[in-house]
Amino acid sequence: MGEIGIGLVGYKFMGRAHSNGYRQVSHFFDVDPKPRMVAIAGRNEAAVSHAAEQLGWEGYETDYRRLIERKDIGLIDVSTPGDSHYDVVMAAIAAGKHVLCEKPLANSLEQARVMMTAAQVAGVVNMINFNYRRVPAVVLARKLIEEGRIGEIRHFRAVYLQDWILDPSFPLVWRLKKELAGSGALGDIAAHIVDLSRYLLGDEIVSVTGSLSTFIKQRPVEVTSGGGAGLEATSGTEYGEVTVDDSAHFLAKFAGGATGTFEVTRLAPGRRNHNQFEINGSKGTIVFDLERLNELEVYFVDDPGDVQGFRKILVTDGPHPYVGAWWPGGHIIGWEHTFAHVIRDLLEGIRTGVNPAPSFADGYRCQAVLDAVERSSASGAWETPVSV
Amino acid sequence: MGEIGIGLVGYKFMGRAHSNGYRQVSHFFDVDPKPRMVAIAGRNEAAVSHAAEQLGWEGYETDYRRLIERKDIGLIDVSTPGDSHYDVVMAAIAAGKHVLCEKPLANSLEQARVMMTAAQVAGVVNMINFNYRRVPAVVLARKLIEEGRIGEIRHFRAVYLQDWILDPSFPLVWRLKKELAGSGALGDIAAHIVDLSRYLLGDEIVSVTGSLSTFIKQRPVEVTSGGGAGLEATSGTEYGEVTVDDSAHFLAKFAGGATGTFEVTRLAPGRRNHNQFEINGSKGTIVFDLERLNELEVYFVDDPGDVQGFRKILVTDGPHPYVGAWWPGGHIIGWEHTFAHVIRDLLEGIRTGVNPAPSFADGYRCQAVLDAVERSSASGAWETPVSV
Amino acid sequence: MGEIGIGLVGYKFMGRAHSNGYRQVSHFFDVDPKPRMVAIAGRNEAAVSHAAEQLGWEGYETDYRRLIERKDIGLIDVSTPGDSHYDVVMAAIAAGKHVLCEKPLANSLEQARVMMTAAQVAGVVNMINFNYRRVPAVVLARKLIEEGRIGEIRHFRAVYLQDWILDPSFPLVWRLKKELAGSGALGDIAAHIVDLSRYLLGDEIVSVTGSLSTFIKQRPVEVTSGGGAGLEATSGTEYGEVTVDDSAHFLAKFAGGATGTFEVTRLAPGRRNHNQFEINGSKGTIVFDLERLNELEVYFVDDPGDVQGFRKILVTDGPHPYVGAWWPGGHIIGWEHTFAHVIRDLLEGIRTGVNPAPSFADGYRCQAVLDAVERSSASGAWETPVSV
Amino acid sequence: MGEIGIGLVGYKFMGRAHSNGYRQVSHFFDVDPKPRMVAIAGRNEAAVSHAAEQLGWEGYETDYRRLIERKDIGLIDVSTPGDSHYDVVMAAIAAGKHVLCEKPLANSLEQARVMMTAAQVAGVVNMINFNYRRVPAVVLARKLIEEGRIGEIRHFRAVYLQDWILDPSFPLVWRLKKELAGSGALGDIAAHIVDLSRYLLGDEIVSVTGSLSTFIKQRPVEVTSGGGAGLEATSGTEYGEVTVDDSAHFLAKFAGGATGTFEVTRLAPGRRNHNQFEINGSKGTIVFDLERLNELEVYFVDDPGDVQGFRKILVTDGPHPYVGAWWPGGHIIGWEHTFAHVIRDLLEGIRTGVNPAPSFADGYRCQAVLDAVERSSASGAWETPVSV
Repeated sequence: MGEIGIGLVGYKFMGRAHSNGYRQVSHFFDVDPKPRMVAIAGRNEAAVSHAAEQLGWEGYETDYRRLIERKDIGLIDVSTPGDSHYDVVMAAIAAGKHVLCEKPLANSLEQARVMMTAAQVAGVVNMINFNYRRVPAVVLARKLIEEGRIGEIRHFRAVYLQDWILDPSFPLVWRLKKELAGSGALGDIAAHIVDLSRYLLGDEIVSVTGSLSTFIKQRPVEVTSGGGAGLEATSGTEYGEVTVDDSAHFLAKFAGGATGTFEVTRLAPGRRNHNQFEINGSKGTIVFDLERLNELEVYFVDDPGDVQGFRKILVTDGPHPYVGAWWPGGHIIGWEHTFAHVIRDLLEGIRTGVNPAPSFADGYRCQAVLDAVERSSASGAWETPVSV
Repeated sequence: MGEIGIGLVGYKFMGRAHSNGYRQVSHFFDVDPKPRMVAIAGRNEAAVSHAAEQLGWEGYETDYRRLIERKDIGLIDVSTPGDSHYDVVMAAIAAGKHVLCEKPLANSLEQARVMMTAAQVAGVVNMINFNYRRVPAVVLARKLIEEGRIGEIRHFRAVYLQDWILDPSFPLVWRLKKELAGSGALGDIAAHIVDLSRYLLGDEIVSVTGSLSTFIKQRPVEVTSGGGAGLEATSGTEYGEVTVDDSAHFLAKFAGGATGTFEVTRLAPGRRNHNQFEINGSKGTIVFDLERLNELEVYFVDDPGDVQGFRKILVTDGPHPYVGAWWPGGHIIGWEHTFAHVIRDLLEGIRTGVNPAPSFADGYRCQAVLDAVERSSASGAWETPVSV
Repeated sequence: MGEIGIGLVGYKFMGRAHSNGYRQVSHFFDVDPKPRMVAIAGRNEAAVSHAAEQLGWEGYETDYRRLIERKDIGLIDVSTPGDSHYDVVMAAIAAGKHVLCEKPLANSLEQARVMMTAAQVAGVVNMINFNYRRVPAVVLARKLIEEGRIGEIRHFRAVYLQDWILDPSFPLVWRLKKELAGSGALGDIAAHIVDLSRYLLGDEIVSVTGSLSTFIKQRPVEVTSGGGAGLEATSGTEYGEVTVDDSAHFLAKFAGGATGTFEVTRLAPGRRNHNQFEINGSKGTIVFDLERLNELEVYFVDDPGDVQGFRKILVTDGPHPYVGAWWPGGHIIGWEHTFAHVIRDLLEGIRTGVNPAPSFADGYRCQAVLDAVERSSASGAWETPVSV
Repeated sequence: MGEIGIGLVGYKFMGRAHSNGYRQVSHFFDVDPKPRMVAIAGRNEAAVSHAAEQLGWEGYETDYRRLIERKDIGLIDVSTPGDSHYDVVMAAIAAGKHVLCEKPLANSLEQARVMMTAAQVAGVVNMINFNYRRVPAVVLARKLIEEGRIGEIRHFRAVYLQDWILDPSFPLVWRLKKELAGSGALGDIAAHIVDLSRYLLGDEIVSVTGSLSTFIKQRPVEVTSGGGAGLEATSGTEYGEVTVDDSAHFLAKFAGGATGTFEVTRLAPGRRNHNQFEINGSKGTIVFDLERLNELEVYFVDDPGDVQGFRKILVTDGPHPYVGAWWPGGHIIGWEHTFAHVIRDLLEGIRTGVNPAPSFADGYRCQAVLDAVERSSASGAWETPVSV
């Protein structure tokens, strides 16, 4: 096909990670079309022009609408906070662009539904960036389950633990404000483990009960505020209210009969990015930890009795998904590589016209589960995720 | 004080472990009174006489009532399945004996309450054998929390995962029958982690929501059946109904504000005895795993920024509780040693008249939590544990 | 056979561990003859009589010769420092007693040779207590090698790292004096890993080159000195010379072609008892660490390509050696249990007349390797262990 | 300064890794000069032109001499097998270019000495790519040692274990031929751990004794042979002789008194890239493993007695070297990032005129140690590395 022009909205943490993915993908994978990094959009011209240069974009726009209008751009990538996803994505779809959107799809379930439907009607390739689906070790886990090597799945349990807002003097950044972020740990990191459960089990959550908590209720107001992930602490003396959860936990039932146990928090000292899951089937167990994302632990019931044990598989060898494109076995990859994998499959989807998962529909279904958790936290009862 | 005569009821798995504790305690700890292993009771004379000899008891009785009547016995130890606890314990209390009882205290919350009250009224020393409170690493965890070194506790999460009934041809042993065991994984292993949460946090669970599951609903009927833990598989062709849960998960709120997440199962391949907990406080995190019970992982927020990390403390050195009595640092102890620690403190309690924890009251409160989980599993709502 | 009377010489660290083994073995293993703990010997009557009571011995003697003379004793167990082994063992053999001797067999290779020959001529059962041969995980490692599941062995590498004399104010105990201990880390802990290499590979070391070091050359003189392992630090102001090595490392060639790399030190901060080995064969790798002695890590080349990885085998299940006698799978054992395993096999050897390994001949061959290391440390050249 | 033109010789495994470093460095670090990827050189035009495109180079040359002649190139990067280093590097120096050279510097110590001297005389910035010096966790280790936080260093021990030639049918690639590779595991991977020991301890090895082994002596001859790392197995039926070692081990003495123990092999099943070292000082211990390169384990003697233990530091946070430029804490980096770190410091050295370590002098000194090991393997004696 040749090339496809990319337009990126947002240039903070996620914008940097997406840019890196576009820069790298063609050097390691045989992609068609190849991405051309046409322009990046942001409101602050000084900042966005600097970002364009540093991140390797040919140009920039200070209005996302102009980005979307450009004829040399075929794919719009949305890496801004959740409150702007709806407007940007809907405009991109209306212009017939393919879209990659950061999670959560939107800050409300209703908006997410509209976006999903619009993308489907328009027939554009649409993808939500649950990048952990493309950690090679996670893909291996899915493969083992799909091939029946773990047997019938009985239990899925996952935590996603972080500690970046542990310090009470950490400021009231956008991720801690409901009007911008939609929710807190729930939408930010529970979204990942709910999506992983759906992907890994190939199953849907049909009922949840859970609870959200906010332990640190006030934080210093940031003096400066940008459009992205401002992760720096300030010495503000004014305090504002934290309007999102900093932790959440919930139980789930899957349609296929498995149980689910989920917990997320941003207040777990020492857990920088501890996305860990364990899956128990009738024939084996799988364990994964994002802080050691090159490894997968697997136990097989059918191993001989004297040598049964959890195998620590270093998922860096040729037989494993994606990693063959990088380096020889034993040369580990990093967190950022997952974005290149997402983009590789997205480009392939654009060529073939087969929408790769996770699509907006996956983003919507994930959000429906989180919505049910929020309702359950209020009602105290088991709640059913809204179906499409 | 000299000596105290011990009478043990039950000689299977738990009876063996308790016997070992009585045999060993005086050789490593300076106990007063010293335990004298007077007699063991069981209904099958051939079996109980053989057990008495193998386990180091001076004699035996074929009726627990005769054991309780003996003047040379001051402490009755109840290591039988849960359905017999009430009768044996009540008789022992009536006879003015001190009592150590295996968990669960009883198969019903009401019986547990009666037993607790009876022991308190009689003024006998009463203890329930939640032996994991006396793993040295667990005691260290409690100490760190008590001294404020982990800060205000926000999250407690624990799993207790096993796999001993994973094979569907494993027989319908007493632990899988409600009339004998009371409940399944819930009463057997969730009891341990609920008790640990109460001990470690020094706090009470005030609300729970949860669910119990039974995945394998029928199992081969055992041809032979004993009074204890028959763990051998048989080739039975007749099937009977499994009347207890093989897994359970629940969320909890503690009075002090912390959240709790609990999960237990007997169907986790490769998890032989994986009792693992993590505690997140405002100043640190603690992690423990029973399969590596000599170790404790601790993270301190206050460590210098360039060397923050989880410490793997090998809890075998002099400064740590109990272990100084065994071997020099680095020489690990086993699971069984926890029983000697329990007995050491029980004997000390008998001498001083200060009832050591966990008392029957602790057993009762733990059971009240499990009872609330069972009610929640039926109602689908958050339930409050019954208070005394 | 009934019973055999045991006489133990020495009651410090090793005496306590051996006593525990004799007390426990009959309660878990079906031994014949059963050990009767007749008497313990030591020069200090107050101390030895107290030890006899605490450790469970029927009586005591203040002269090891009287112990050996006793008709009711069939097995002499020598748990004293190395300088006394020769006299005690030779007297025991002369009296026709079976002998279990702590390592090293003697403080000189020549004495070891004489002791070995004397035991063989007398036809008594003789065993040297390399107890780590009977860690269940180590036995499993040997079994895997013996069955060819690791293939042709190319590399053996082991460290034994401790830190108990790291503090320069730790006193000049007997283990730091050449005239009492023979050598330092070499004889004490390198002995263990050399023996393990011989056991695991079923092969002999034919050449070594190495070096011994003493980093802390002076230490406070102990005011009080006993006949055993005085491990307490004192505030002595007088200093004496450390006359043994505190670390050693050496390379080895095995007769079968494998290479060996060995290192020991008592100056490795944080390494309490880190006896770790790795074996690389043509078909797999084995890794063991004494601080996690219930586990064995094994890698098999023949595993399917997508699930190759080191298995962490929890060696506590029925199929594994020895552990079936203790507790159900997942209930870990401690360091001390290895002594019961040694005694179990020693008693079996006495019954059958088949001398169990490691015999005095094994002790001699191990010592010949260490002797060659000492010679190499002086000569700077590869040295060949003396053969019998 | 603006830009500096880069010319790269070699485009296989190392060429790909270096190219990635040049592509990435400016996007994450504020480098001056910025690297401009001018041209890549290789003899096979089809291959090199394809490589240029895929790896992001503006052009290519089929003769390295033409590359060196180009006025728009200021830095020559040599990523070819060792036998060509001398010619290419000497030509680059003669042309006044700065040089980055893959290890080993040359296939003979004499050539390395000449190259070092030539670079020094010419005054060009010269660097050898021991990239593991710039793993953030390794830099942290160095910092802890330099600041005295580990105390006086007593022991350095390292292994570098791989398994990529374990299969006897793996072909006779250039790395297995002495005339091309100089040596085997010794020059390829022992070079890394010798360099790390020099860097970490800030000390020199003054004496070594060691031994080299070749277990698999014949391998299938490759039908096709290229100028780079052909890592593909072939079904050749003709066999050729392996002329390099596949394993090596040696002992070392450092000038400052520390002992060193080193072992490398390409025949360790399951060890894909296991470069692991442990350093014992008087105040602490450090442990590192390349397969988990984002982590460093550290033990401090001065920690309070009840919480002493190895800390597992996740070296991904702001306070740590280099990583602040990448992603927020907990988002791990991969093996390839070390090359960007090398290039960042190389560019800084070009700007400031201060030659960054490791220079050719470091490459020479490392090689002098390996040379002494080879001599020792032949002589059986301790050998002293040649000084400059």
